Amino acid sequence: MKLPAKTVQRLSKYRRILYKYRYLDEPHIFSHDLARLLNLNPVQIRRDLMLIGGSGNHRRGYHVKQLIQLIGEKIDSEKGRKIVLVGIGKLGQAIAEYLSDREMFQEVIAVFDIDPVKVGKTIYDIPCYDIRDLSRMIKKNKVSIAILTVPSDYAVTIAELLIDSGIEGILNFTSVRLNTPESVFVQDFDIVTSLEEMAYRVSRD
Amino acid sequence: MKLPAKTVQRLSKYRRILYKYRYLDEPHIFSHDLARLLNLNPVQIRRDLMLIGGSGNHRRGYHVKQLIQLIGEKIDSEKGRKIVLVGIGKLGQAIAEYLSDREMFQEVIAVFDIDPVKVGKTIYDIPCYDIRDLSRMIKKNKVSIAILTVPSDYAVTIAELLIDSGIEGILNFTSVRLNTPESVFVQDFDIVTSLEEMAYRVSRD
Repeated sequence: MKLPAKTVQRLSKYRRILYKYRYLDEPHIFSHDLARLLNLNPVQIRRDLMLIGGSGNHRRGYHVKQLIQLIGEKIDSEKGRKIVLVGIGKLGQAIAEYLSDREMFQEVIAVFDIDPVKVGKTIYDIPCYDIRDLSRMIKKNKVSIAILTVPSDYAVTIAELLIDSGIEGILNFTSVRLNTPESVFVQDFDIVTSLEEMAYRVSRD
Repeated sequence: MKLPAKTVQRLSKYRRILYKYRYLDEPHIFSHDLARLLNLNPVQIRRDLMLIGGSGNHRRGYHVKQLIQLIGEKIDSEKGRKIVLVGIGKLGQAIAEYLSDREMFQEVIAVFDIDPVKVGKTIYDIPCYDIRDLSRMIKKNKVSIAILTVPSDYAVTIAELLIDSGIEGILNFTSVRLNTPESVFVQDFDIVTSLEEMAYRVSRD
């Protein structure tokens, strides 16, 4: 069964909340508490959890650890587990640090840059390689997702290299539009453009 | 004339490229060069620029400084110029640093946190205030856009406070859904959820 994108997004968010309680002894949680923490509708949450086969208990709610496992079985896969991050400027570094702190099934296994000062070092425990090793490393480790934080001038060239090497999903933090084959998923996170667009909208509406 | 959201996004991107050349003596640029740099269609670019009244010269292309000014006249406004950033954790800090480096019309005028170690200091030259001053500062400075990088547990409360204080646009980096009045624009930048969703998609398609 293929789940709708929105459902996967919500399951991912539920799990992030549940992770916080997993070290308790036999933790349980009610859908309305989960709803409150994520500002969602409890009916929606119960429907999502029913869809993946989760069942709560009237008295205690859902079993947290069982739910974490169940969500993982539905949305995780070895294929999307390994991530590379390309471009260790300020933003790249910040994202590497931010992710190193998160509870997530996925793992940033390598970062890449052209700066000889960075190459060969580790950044938040992640090894930094020369960008010339990008293709080899992606293929060798069967990586399918990349975070792109290079300067705009390099975005198209690096994206092409990523796709040629087997990458199927790109989180694009550059301001450049990537024209990728349909089989590749791109999500744009262009902070400056979003802020400028927002400024335009708040001033006209 | 109200421009479509996509057009505003592209104009914002054009300007970012043009900024790089503005210190040259009388710089000009052709639409096909701009197209190459942003990986867009030159016809599209000429159409956008014509829409805002920009005209190129067959021999030399568009006058860079004139175009920068023209784009600014169309998309900038005093109202969206001031930004606050709420929550100076790792991600908040990274975004403050990233934006301090950008060429943009907008300005982060203040950051807010609850940590007494941070309050009263400056972060990348931006003063950090106690979150208790948030409402007062927003009103006093007529701020209309906020970047939300607080821990999830605080997202809803702080978003409500922002909106009550007059904020009309929120860039939401938390994993919590904000239910805001229709007049408030929210754009979600949930990095972990996006990565998990991408992992799901690459493994099923």
